[in-house]
Amino acid sequence: MSTDPRAAGFPAAAAGPDTGLLSPVRAGTPVEAAVGDLAWLQAMLDAEAALARAQARLGTMPKEAARAITEAARAEHIDALAVARGSRETANPVVGLVRALTDLVAERDPEAAEYVHRGSTSQDIFDTGAMLVARRALLLITADLERAAEALGALAARHRDTAMAGRTLALQAVPTTFGLKAAGWRQLLLDSSARLRRLLDGGLPVSLGGAAGTLAGYLEYAAPEGAAPVEPGAYVRRLTEAFAEETGLAEAALPWHALRTPIADLAGALALTAGALGKIAVDVQSLTRTEVGEVTEPGRAGRGVSSAMPHKRNPVLATLIRSAALQVPVLAAGLTQCLLAEDERSGGAWHAEWLLLRECLRLAGGAAHTAVELAEGLQVNEDCMRANLALTGSQVVSERISAVLAPLLGRAPAKALLTEASERAGRTGRPLGEVLADLPEVSEHLGADRLRELLDPVRYTGAAPALVDRALACDDTH
Amino acid sequence: MSTDPRAAGFPAAAAGPDTGLLSPVRAGTPVEAAVGDLAWLQAMLDAEAALARAQARLGTMPKEAARAITEAARAEHIDALAVARGSRETANPVVGLVRALTDLVAERDPEAAEYVHRGSTSQDIFDTGAMLVARRALLLITADLERAAEALGALAARHRDTAMAGRTLALQAVPTTFGLKAAGWRQLLLDSSARLRRLLDGGLPVSLGGAAGTLAGYLEYAAPEGAAPVEPGAYVRRLTEAFAEETGLAEAALPWHALRTPIADLAGALALTAGALGKIAVDVQSLTRTEVGEVTEPGRAGRGVSSAMPHKRNPVLATLIRSAALQVPVLAAGLTQCLLAEDERSGGAWHAEWLLLRECLRLAGGAAHTAVELAEGLQVNEDCMRANLALTGSQVVSERISAVLAPLLGRAPAKALLTEASERAGRTGRPLGEVLADLPEVSEHLGADRLRELLDPVRYTGAAPALVDRALACDDTH
Amino acid sequence: MSTDPRAAGFPAAAAGPDTGLLSPVRAGTPVEAAVGDLAWLQAMLDAEAALARAQARLGTMPKEAARAITEAARAEHIDALAVARGSRETANPVVGLVRALTDLVAERDPEAAEYVHRGSTSQDIFDTGAMLVARRALLLITADLERAAEALGALAARHRDTAMAGRTLALQAVPTTFGLKAAGWRQLLLDSSARLRRLLDGGLPVSLGGAAGTLAGYLEYAAPEGAAPVEPGAYVRRLTEAFAEETGLAEAALPWHALRTPIADLAGALALTAGALGKIAVDVQSLTRTEVGEVTEPGRAGRGVSSAMPHKRNPVLATLIRSAALQVPVLAAGLTQCLLAEDERSGGAWHAEWLLLRECLRLAGGAAHTAVELAEGLQVNEDCMRANLALTGSQVVSERISAVLAPLLGRAPAKALLTEASERAGRTGRPLGEVLADLPEVSEHLGADRLRELLDPVRYTGAAPALVDRALACDDTH
Amino acid sequence: MSTDPRAAGFPAAAAGPDTGLLSPVRAGTPVEAAVGDLAWLQAMLDAEAALARAQARLGTMPKEAARAITEAARAEHIDALAVARGSRETANPVVGLVRALTDLVAERDPEAAEYVHRGSTSQDIFDTGAMLVARRALLLITADLERAAEALGALAARHRDTAMAGRTLALQAVPTTFGLKAAGWRQLLLDSSARLRRLLDGGLPVSLGGAAGTLAGYLEYAAPEGAAPVEPGAYVRRLTEAFAEETGLAEAALPWHALRTPIADLAGALALTAGALGKIAVDVQSLTRTEVGEVTEPGRAGRGVSSAMPHKRNPVLATLIRSAALQVPVLAAGLTQCLLAEDERSGGAWHAEWLLLRECLRLAGGAAHTAVELAEGLQVNEDCMRANLALTGSQVVSERISAVLAPLLGRAPAKALLTEASERAGRTGRPLGEVLADLPEVSEHLGADRLRELLDPVRYTGAAPALVDRALACDDTH
Repeated sequence: MSTDPRAAGFPAAAAGPDTGLLSPVRAGTPVEAAVGDLAWLQAMLDAEAALARAQARLGTMPKEAARAITEAARAEHIDALAVARGSRETANPVVGLVRALTDLVAERDPEAAEYVHRGSTSQDIFDTGAMLVARRALLLITADLERAAEALGALAARHRDTAMAGRTLALQAVPTTFGLKAAGWRQLLLDSSARLRRLLDGGLPVSLGGAAGTLAGYLEYAAPEGAAPVEPGAYVRRLTEAFAEETGLAEAALPWHALRTPIADLAGALALTAGALGKIAVDVQSLTRTEVGEVTEPGRAGRGVSSAMPHKRNPVLATLIRSAALQVPVLAAGLTQCLLAEDERSGGAWHAEWLLLRECLRLAGGAAHTAVELAEGLQVNEDCMRANLALTGSQVVSERISAVLAPLLGRAPAKALLTEASERAGRTGRPLGEVLADLPEVSEHLGADRLRELLDPVRYTGAAPALVDRALACDDTH
Repeated sequence: MSTDPRAAGFPAAAAGPDTGLLSPVRAGTPVEAAVGDLAWLQAMLDAEAALARAQARLGTMPKEAARAITEAARAEHIDALAVARGSRETANPVVGLVRALTDLVAERDPEAAEYVHRGSTSQDIFDTGAMLVARRALLLITADLERAAEALGALAARHRDTAMAGRTLALQAVPTTFGLKAAGWRQLLLDSSARLRRLLDGGLPVSLGGAAGTLAGYLEYAAPEGAAPVEPGAYVRRLTEAFAEETGLAEAALPWHALRTPIADLAGALALTAGALGKIAVDVQSLTRTEVGEVTEPGRAGRGVSSAMPHKRNPVLATLIRSAALQVPVLAAGLTQCLLAEDERSGGAWHAEWLLLRECLRLAGGAAHTAVELAEGLQVNEDCMRANLALTGSQVVSERISAVLAPLLGRAPAKALLTEASERAGRTGRPLGEVLADLPEVSEHLGADRLRELLDPVRYTGAAPALVDRALACDDTH
Repeated sequence: MSTDPRAAGFPAAAAGPDTGLLSPVRAGTPVEAAVGDLAWLQAMLDAEAALARAQARLGTMPKEAARAITEAARAEHIDALAVARGSRETANPVVGLVRALTDLVAERDPEAAEYVHRGSTSQDIFDTGAMLVARRALLLITADLERAAEALGALAARHRDTAMAGRTLALQAVPTTFGLKAAGWRQLLLDSSARLRRLLDGGLPVSLGGAAGTLAGYLEYAAPEGAAPVEPGAYVRRLTEAFAEETGLAEAALPWHALRTPIADLAGALALTAGALGKIAVDVQSLTRTEVGEVTEPGRAGRGVSSAMPHKRNPVLATLIRSAALQVPVLAAGLTQCLLAEDERSGGAWHAEWLLLRECLRLAGGAAHTAVELAEGLQVNEDCMRANLALTGSQVVSERISAVLAPLLGRAPAKALLTEASERAGRTGRPLGEVLADLPEVSEHLGADRLRELLDPVRYTGAAPALVDRALACDDTH
Repeated sequence: MSTDPRAAGFPAAAAGPDTGLLSPVRAGTPVEAAVGDLAWLQAMLDAEAALARAQARLGTMPKEAARAITEAARAEHIDALAVARGSRETANPVVGLVRALTDLVAERDPEAAEYVHRGSTSQDIFDTGAMLVARRALLLITADLERAAEALGALAARHRDTAMAGRTLALQAVPTTFGLKAAGWRQLLLDSSARLRRLLDGGLPVSLGGAAGTLAGYLEYAAPEGAAPVEPGAYVRRLTEAFAEETGLAEAALPWHALRTPIADLAGALALTAGALGKIAVDVQSLTRTEVGEVTEPGRAGRGVSSAMPHKRNPVLATLIRSAALQVPVLAAGLTQCLLAEDERSGGAWHAEWLLLRECLRLAGGAAHTAVELAEGLQVNEDCMRANLALTGSQVVSERISAVLAPLLGRAPAKALLTEASERAGRTGRPLGEVLADLPEVSEHLGADRLRELLDPVRYTGAAPALVDRALACDDTH
């Protein structure tokens, strides 16, 4: 068999589609479309158009020029592949994009073409475009997080009192309720959403600095040779304000070409989001195990089918979510590494952000979208929960008996008694209650009925129901 | 030479000191002491004591017991090494610590010993201790960040108009001012400090959940056999409130044993902090280069000495800071990975956080401490800045001439003219001004004086001074 | 409550012990001692001594001087804390260490003191010391990996035919044997050990470059003013060879101050090692779950005790191992980031390696040490394996029936039949065998006995036993 | 301005192209095509076809069926988007791909369709496909690394003696030669290539395990109901061998669905590769700085153009390479995290590998491709090197004078003398030679001519030329 890679038939000239084949968690989701190459291209064009309109508002560009630029700035008229390939020559796609946009504008209005990208620099356009993309993605993500949180809130309310085993270090510890678990999941999603909303509310700024952050080019064009000079401080304040309004983005304290707080903030919030979703996924997987069976993912025809095993209904939603959650933290670390951007623009640290940011957005977004379906359709198998709680023959409430006996026998003797009784129960297979009832130290204090009551796991859920109430009553996040 | 490692003489029984030998950025700094093993031990003891006092306030423990526990809870009386070694048996140090504390209390007041760790679980104590440590560290870090920011603010004001080359992709781009650069550094530190202060203000909660997050053990002890029952919701609310007050920490929306938002928030904010400091460091290194020479680190006897080269004064502060900034982002990624904590307590994901969190705190903290000295003592060499600005024979303002000519010649012809003139200037070694003066398209529009004025780099700093004013006037961070 | 951190009583002047409190996976293990601050100090002293002996062998230093240096070079005579603190002044601990060593030598032999660190540079000493530390640690780690692998090999042989459920995506898939699982674990440890041994066999080189990698200082001292010149190529070859022999390390192709292949190789191999151990840990946790119960960690008094729950025997060894496995990959990423070391020595990228390398070594080493105990003592509960295999009423062999029927009914109809039958079995709770026996398409081809045989999970372990044989017969790793 | 994301016009139904817009380092490179979605699809189809042929060779499938499957297995006939979208239902693309392939085969030969994916499982096909993709990419990458290494070898030979400043911690340290620098770069590429070749030579195995690693399905089909049984060990050995031969891949010691050594090995080697390339890039950037000017990237029309500044020729190749080098280490960490794959197949850890692996391949590959152009066209500006060496007025050789005087004056006095003289030279601007000549301790030992000779930086390159010879003579890598 020939296996020469050059003969494998993939001509260098062709860019394939980005189908999501290797990233099913986002394949076909709205966020995928919102951050794809074409969306990014459009966002950069939106930035160019908004910049033109902002300059027109300040009178340093004819309104007609701004209108012509806005009308021409449509990604569908741009050869995205040519722009991408050309970006190897200049290390960023904006140079080629500006050229293509200028041509498009010139077709309509040759004079307007003079005003494209006026006074600007690649990074202003790229970063403003990135913030537009981020905002569009964050709106989708927060909506999905909140929809999933709502479904989890309903689950929590419904199962406020549904007792199940609490598990620590892989073992049954003491009882809890499924409501408390669902309330915890919901809380994580609300935490994530709150941090993303904080970014939507002022954390995604326009980039406006010109070649090296001084806006000198913008100022130069604002006062052409022979015209009255402009006051730099006032002009850049007004220009920034107008640009922010035209894009719907925020203003930054300073041009941020090499001050990457917005990127780091996104990285942090998206890593939390992915991790929060991932926590739900690993819990669902833990509870789905064949031997546990306490929850089942929502099924629909074809969902969870195995290529080999007819009986399996794989928990695919949890699998997809977890796959994203395992990736985002390291991608986010890559983004924060890029804070070390030397000089007024880094040759490399800036460029390394682009792919990482998109992946963080679409992985977190795909996971959030997947979580909506998971949360809205999750089936809870109360019978299995009850059966599992009974598995240890009441050892799952040994803490309680220990606590009851401590004031009576002393803490250390009480714990030792329980440790020994648990061990005996385990060894002999007898229920813990029987073993305890045989001990005079116990029977002296606790009658058979009282002992039975104390040993009932369902009655030892502590404050779980109350905590559910409290969590659901409060929408604030810490 | 024998190189048998077993013969190397490091007996397994001895723990060496944590001197900071491999981490000079934090060696001997206050934050190092605040997060060391002994400080962590003390913080866990503080958590035990605060828990006892909180229970005493609610009447479920004698006030004398709480007092005895508080008095005994001193790290200097604990064999830290024994606790650490013992933690291998239980996967956490709290079990052994509780045993040691109980013995200490029993020596003073045998009855009080019954109340140590009552109703509690290892994670409540460890996590509350971790939050106490984090708070103490964050207070140090924010103080250092703000002190460094203040020094940078003074530098920015002083050099508001000091022209220097702005550099992008390693090359001189257009002029800027050193004031703007310093103002940008300051802004990053204020951003970092703002995010850390947000955590200090409600983001560092006590951990109070009991064995599996239901607080069942606390409730059981609150209503001993025969006593009146307590209302779970009200009791846990009051207990959490009292615990928070006794520690000075916040309350969480829910027990957070497996809901690790506080850890992810710390990871995000500390990664930003380290990255912000690292940005300053790489800039200082860039400007310190022998061929650039625009800034010099503060010197003092012995500082920056090389083991081999008598003439060198290494920029050691920037080196130390950068060394921290390269580490924290990946450590922080490890922390956010731990969000995937299965069940009510993960067997591993929780335990993986501890070391990573401490390193993030002490690396970021060490870097912040180092930055104070750097910022307060940084020497600015204006002569070098001026000389470097002159290096390109005015090519550093080619953007300006291009902008001036664009309205006159058309944008594309103007840029082409400048590109060609710059190339000719580079090839022939003639100043750009001379080359331009020879071109009729230029001389037609710009007289010799005007051209000289336009070509003066010092006069093309755009809005840099105004941006400095604006940044210094505003303490808000986006 | 006062919570002022400055009042917390941790004076900046004191370095606490490195007890392992936050890293129980390595607390008290041999590798911890082999990589601690004192061991590192000693390794750097060993490098200084070896360098002196190497120069003496070449005749460029008196043998007595080399002997005096070797005798004085003992960490116990050095104030480690002072060296660590002093490293803040020079960004590395070697400058201060050389000063301290020189004083020690001078006490014995003032003339010999002239020869300490002759021609050398900090990085030669530090990196050579680091390689010595790495080698000592790797010898411990590989020994532990191989001891654990041996125990796993014995487990694999013993349970070659012990049927258990194979699980994919959290669900029972088809049967396997515990022997195959153990053989897989063993294979991962052998893979790891092979990669570490490859490094021990030539991958850990001395560092010998002088101030900027040209060895000029060494050459200068080799031919003092007035002496015959040395041939640079021959001299440095002989010096490197002698240094390598004296340390037991390898020679590098070139001085590697800024060519960090050895560090990246260590990072890669240690990340694999930690991950391999972590795979075992997550499997043990999965099989230990209360509802699964197929394996139990080795117990001994006090092991796995919970601070709250008397009945629990936590799988602490797996927990410790997993905690390390979650950390090493990101730490290793930090190390590979440091490959981007600018110039002849990076101001920061080099310094960032130190802590990360030590943590990788001691976390991987602690995990390997812990794995020995886990592998040697793991209890296998065959009854539980059998019971769990029966849980699905033979659905766990639905693949087999599908394969048997495919040639008879066609693949798609066969799979559809099994999918429906599995679903019906699941819905009604009837064993799959009964459901199938009712179907004429099945009973036509398969008699009741044959069907029973085919549905017996224990008879459907495929090539698992044969794969165990093959794996155990072969010690090579790919 | 409307900014509703849902109105942004990116319908969820359309997958955009993967143009490389956000990743110019690989846009349009051969490796991009070799690892794209279509290439991956084809590789999985190649795996299916090879599996069929392997089974036909063993007689368990008609040769005609294998032929028909091989002929039908062409990516261009598959709706890649449908497969990708469908993968959300099953958490991997193989289920849908098998369905599509079965239909394609059935069109040609309905009977052959029965044999598609016979006995197999999704992971066998996906992982084998991934190894095929990796091999094809690695062949491209190693070829590029070696071509770049060859060019660097030529540079090293040509500039064996070209003196330049060696720089450490950003400052000039002692002289070196550009040849030694280039030889070091070359060595890193050879190291990388050697590690990748090691993987090409046996480290990329077929995946063949069936549903849970026992190959039970394959065995079942090999011995249909009524046929003679097969000996499992012999059969799987032969099947694996045939599959490996048909694909050109290696055999693994055991089925590796959850034993991810090959992935970790790839991660490690690709991280080294990217880092090695990144080291070259940061050096090129350092030497390209306007104030340094020692090297220039190869230019061609349009290369390095700035959108704002006509005079700039940005070092875009180094920028692109560095952008990749900053990303790969963290992506590789994500891959090694996935070693923690629970059970016989992880629900998430496996799935998280896919995207990360592809990005590592195409970023490292794009960077290697870019490095060929950089290495083959790099311009070395010897004049600038010489001028920069003269900048410090001979302080760059202070080490030498210190070494010469040490045997005469004692080491400490000699170093103190040089430190003071260097400082005085720096303060007064006088050349170090003049300052030294004034000192009787110096002039007593060194005549003016000898002093001048010793102070000539060009004569203090130590063993640099000899090291170049040695490195170029040897192609082995440690």
